[in-house]
Amino acid sequence: MAQVNESYGKLLAGYLFPEIGRRVQVFQESNPDAAIIRLGIGDVTLPLAPAVVDAMRAAVDEMATSEGFHGYGPDRGYDFLLDAIREHDYLARGVEIDSEEIFLSDGSKQDSGNIQEIFGVDCRIAVSDPVYPVYVDTNVMAGRTGDADDAGRYAGILYLPATEENGFVPDPPEERVDLVYLCSPNNPTGSVMSRESLERWVAWARQCDAVLIFDAAYDAFITDPELPRSIYQIEGSRECAIEMRSFSKRAGFTGVRCAYTVVPRELTGSTSSGERISLHSLWARRQSTKFNCVPYVVQRAAAAVFSPEGAKQTGEQVAYYMENARQIREGLRDSGFTVFAGIHAPYIWMRTPEGLSSWDFFDRLLSEAHVVGTPGSGFGPSGEGYFRISAFNSHENVDEALRRIAEVFGR
Amino acid sequence: MAQVNESYGKLLAGYLFPEIGRRVQVFQESNPDAAIIRLGIGDVTLPLAPAVVDAMRAAVDEMATSEGFHGYGPDRGYDFLLDAIREHDYLARGVEIDSEEIFLSDGSKQDSGNIQEIFGVDCRIAVSDPVYPVYVDTNVMAGRTGDADDAGRYAGILYLPATEENGFVPDPPEERVDLVYLCSPNNPTGSVMSRESLERWVAWARQCDAVLIFDAAYDAFITDPELPRSIYQIEGSRECAIEMRSFSKRAGFTGVRCAYTVVPRELTGSTSSGERISLHSLWARRQSTKFNCVPYVVQRAAAAVFSPEGAKQTGEQVAYYMENARQIREGLRDSGFTVFAGIHAPYIWMRTPEGLSSWDFFDRLLSEAHVVGTPGSGFGPSGEGYFRISAFNSHENVDEALRRIAEVFGR
Repeated sequence: MAQVNESYGKLLAGYLFPEIGRRVQVFQESNPDAAIIRLGIGDVTLPLAPAVVDAMRAAVDEMATSEGFHGYGPDRGYDFLLDAIREHDYLARGVEIDSEEIFLSDGSKQDSGNIQEIFGVDCRIAVSDPVYPVYVDTNVMAGRTGDADDAGRYAGILYLPATEENGFVPDPPEERVDLVYLCSPNNPTGSVMSRESLERWVAWARQCDAVLIFDAAYDAFITDPELPRSIYQIEGSRECAIEMRSFSKRAGFTGVRCAYTVVPRELTGSTSSGERISLHSLWARRQSTKFNCVPYVVQRAAAAVFSPEGAKQTGEQVAYYMENARQIREGLRDSGFTVFAGIHAPYIWMRTPEGLSSWDFFDRLLSEAHVVGTPGSGFGPSGEGYFRISAFNSHENVDEALRRIAEVFGR
Repeated sequence: MAQVNESYGKLLAGYLFPEIGRRVQVFQESNPDAAIIRLGIGDVTLPLAPAVVDAMRAAVDEMATSEGFHGYGPDRGYDFLLDAIREHDYLARGVEIDSEEIFLSDGSKQDSGNIQEIFGVDCRIAVSDPVYPVYVDTNVMAGRTGDADDAGRYAGILYLPATEENGFVPDPPEERVDLVYLCSPNNPTGSVMSRESLERWVAWARQCDAVLIFDAAYDAFITDPELPRSIYQIEGSRECAIEMRSFSKRAGFTGVRCAYTVVPRELTGSTSSGERISLHSLWARRQSTKFNCVPYVVQRAAAAVFSPEGAKQTGEQVAYYMENARQIREGLRDSGFTVFAGIHAPYIWMRTPEGLSSWDFFDRLLSEAHVVGTPGSGFGPSGEGYFRISAFNSHENVDEALRRIAEVFGR
């Protein structure tokens, strides 16, 4: 009798974004004429940059010839891309990362979901609250938690509230945890970790032999050059941190699929008998057994992001979205909302008005303004009463959404 | 203290193909002039079919425009591809599969490695021996086994020997198992399951409430129209079987990455309290949480495989490789080897000569004939004394490899 993984039974409702999709679909079906503006899921809207398109076209042409055809590629990725990452994302910031420490993937969602596999099932994890749901759900599925309580907190996970009081950046906990997921710039709160905050976390992790899983998928949106873009800009982090980065938001790759994870060679975990095991070798084994790397044409497209034209064009895309973020921040403020972030991240975090719950505000925003956002409570109990607005859309749609919001909710 | 997943420590040596790559690299470095011919890893060599290239180019062009840009796609895949699969891979063979039962992925390796996640850790698995290593290794990593014995068999897994006596197609076991991985046409033995054999397995699985994981990644190489191409051509299989299929070998997608898994709605597993749980819903949750589907341009490329031109062109590619298989079969026989299969699969399975071990023959074939194959023992203890030769190469390279093999080993 094939028994199922009963941990799935502990998962609360559906994954957040399918649930949003379902509600939007229901509304659209009964209101076919409503011109819904989506500031919800955080999907990019600008077309691929010309340099990226050119590289992808050239790669497709190669694949059409005997000489240029590429079948199975190297496990971690082609050197042309790994080397470009090493040079532009690290060396240019004074960080030495070996190309062999970089593992390409088809998304930071995948990497941040899969990374827990190399750790023991008894590891205790900590997450900020609210949190990107994938960190939590994949640990629930792996049996690392108990049931959820009424507030939606799973037993066994330490939740670190990200609140207005701490600027939405929690400090390291007092109690023992083994794995901590950090995301900066943060999804969903849009907050960003300062150098000092990162230094506190690295010092804490080294002291208690914990591993930090640092998700920097949104680093391209950091506008202050003094803020670290990589955790490896913090001394001592190679001994305690795994870093994940993505092309999804920085270069519009949500439908192209390319990301990467860095696992430094120094980083180890422990067996129950105290033997130190290289996390790099475990992740290499995991990836070579369960993954075949990223399509050749996608790797060529990603490499083009680092070319002078590609960097310029994708930088302009980021600036385009950040102009939206500025407008949303100011527009919502003008309508009387209390808003946060949107300065180093493409997300604006706001208080819901009139004490509405996050989902109630979602439903009102959808039904009255025909605008889709993301309920803060979908990211965890401390997100209740908050709401995420994404800057990924056209200037025109952002203007129109703000106009409608002012009309419905404006003071 | 972050504890590692200690199950990784049970894994024997490296994954097979990286180890082959390592040995080839070592040999090539000390013999830079040797023109090595690779009949090992089973990677395709022909360029992408023109219809596939055209579709991919058109999709790249779309991604360059505001109107045609595609960001995050639907979880399971775009309808244009799911519907084409339903129609051409199933309906055309008299099998009704709902599009919602199809889940696209970036490879059958991924799917066959990930599928075990939705089952309980106490499930007992059975595999044929020799076996595609991913089925076993991913279960070892998940903690579903004990240590390996001297022969390389992990405690807790039931190995079903695939031998010359049973035509390399084992029958269902007497003892209880919960999950069985079947691969037909088989990697590595090249054997194919008859309708009668599949019927026995389906009847057995239904009787003992087991789940069959049917890997049909090589179905395009079946040349006898009487042989089933899908397990769903067998009555009753929707209640007991998950099927995986790939574009890798049928359309040269090893560097493009597209495959799919079918989980019928009727299929259930059990909780410890006896409740029946839909495996379709578990897999849907797994995929929506840990995966973002396949790049849009890849889905367009895959859909082109089903167009009249795409089907014709990829069919010609398959025929080209199968002509290689015929030549390898006959050439090796002429050199005095005992060979099997290569009729409904791109793999020729052969006995090693002179009682050589599989790896000793690998090393001799590499160092003396400069030909790379795959040691049978790398697929399991019953593969010892056997060797896999892949038909994926050019006619010219196959000719040359056979000439060298005849020179070194010919009687």
